[in-house]
Amino acid sequence: MTITITAFESSPDRGRGLARDMRVRWALEEVGQPYEVRLVSFAAMKQPAHLALNPLGQIPTYEEGDLTLFESGAIVFHIAERFPGLLPTDANARARAVMWMFAALSTVEPPIVDADIVSYAERGKSWQDERRAMVNERIRVRLSELSAHLGDADWLDGAFSAADIIMVHTLRRLEGSALLEDYPNLVAYIARAEARPAYQRAFAAQRAVWEAAAT
Amino acid sequence: MTITITAFESSPDRGRGLARDMRVRWALEEVGQPYEVRLVSFAAMKQPAHLALNPLGQIPTYEEGDLTLFESGAIVFHIAERFPGLLPTDANARARAVMWMFAALSTVEPPIVDADIVSYAERGKSWQDERRAMVNERIRVRLSELSAHLGDADWLDGAFSAADIIMVHTLRRLEGSALLEDYPNLVAYIARAEARPAYQRAFAAQRAVWEAAAT
Repeated sequence: MTITITAFESSPDRGRGLARDMRVRWALEEVGQPYEVRLVSFAAMKQPAHLALNPLGQIPTYEEGDLTLFESGAIVFHIAERFPGLLPTDANARARAVMWMFAALSTVEPPIVDADIVSYAERGKSWQDERRAMVNERIRVRLSELSAHLGDADWLDGAFSAADIIMVHTLRRLEGSALLEDYPNLVAYIARAEARPAYQRAFAAQRAVWEAAAT
Repeated sequence: MTITITAFESSPDRGRGLARDMRVRWALEEVGQPYEVRLVSFAAMKQPAHLALNPLGQIPTYEEGDLTLFESGAIVFHIAERFPGLLPTDANARARAVMWMFAALSTVEPPIVDADIVSYAERGKSWQDERRAMVNERIRVRLSELSAHLGDADWLDGAFSAADIIMVHTLRRLEGSALLEDYPNLVAYIARAEARPAYQRAFAAQRAVWEAAAT
């Protein structure tokens, strides 16, 4: 069955691979599954045809036969359940991998996304810098905890898993920031993930969409 | 095997059942599993003994034999996989239930938690009201979309599932707000969930902790 995902027609990240279709592309590349992509504009995301796939009006979505999913975490989890390679077979290790997916999305990601909100939605506000400092402090707490957990390990919990896809992609929004560079083991963790051939194929695929849109 | 969870010794919500142990208690009550509770203070959450259970220093945690989990979403999902009653058996329906868990945690919850941050961390700032209005608008978008999806249905996707536990508990932070009352079907959805005997047992159990702490 053909797998079809949706992605931004013109990503606001200008091809940096920060949009959430990147997670799904990366997971599909890790498990060696081909996929098709349907591009949607910001306007189309809130129109009935797309809302029928995702009532919350976001990308990515995932269609495979009579199954339609949305939410990048759920899609990556589905891919990891459906194809071997992204979840441990040991039951406890598997539960911990799923746990780290939830931790990335529910605890680590919200303050990082909030920093982006400060940048675009609060631009020009007299209090933007004050808010940014408060958000950065919340991010710093999470990076400190995560860095202490990771230590010298390659991945979050044993072998590379779906959780590393979500966590690395979440942290990538901080790439190049002084905030992240205070944690060399997290910088190295991201670099290790980005060196994976599956990551590179996924990155190139989303990059090509941006380049086509920009010409 | 004994299941042990952690919860706040003295919850900042003053017994309103908004802390995330409520989700785990509720799930365990739905599947009829007894559990023990170890109470932790805010200070203890960031000490080595608790960080060994959860490096991100939060409650709840879940211990069962040699498995230790954290993140309420992951724990509820584990309970739903381990015991019958909280996930559909049909594969596609199960994937959609998991999807709604991720949607609740990753898309619906962040702006709702942000509203709490406005209330406590930005108290006294000259820009608090302006920020609150911006956050409320983000919440309103999600409530509108969720309300349109739910329509006249009882639950998010067919039968009651683990996803409804997470979504209802997320929405409960808005209980009593004008924001939520603009969506009568969401108010009714919450009330329907709160009427469940399992919910009521879980609520009473967490309430008892607060009452003991307050006397």
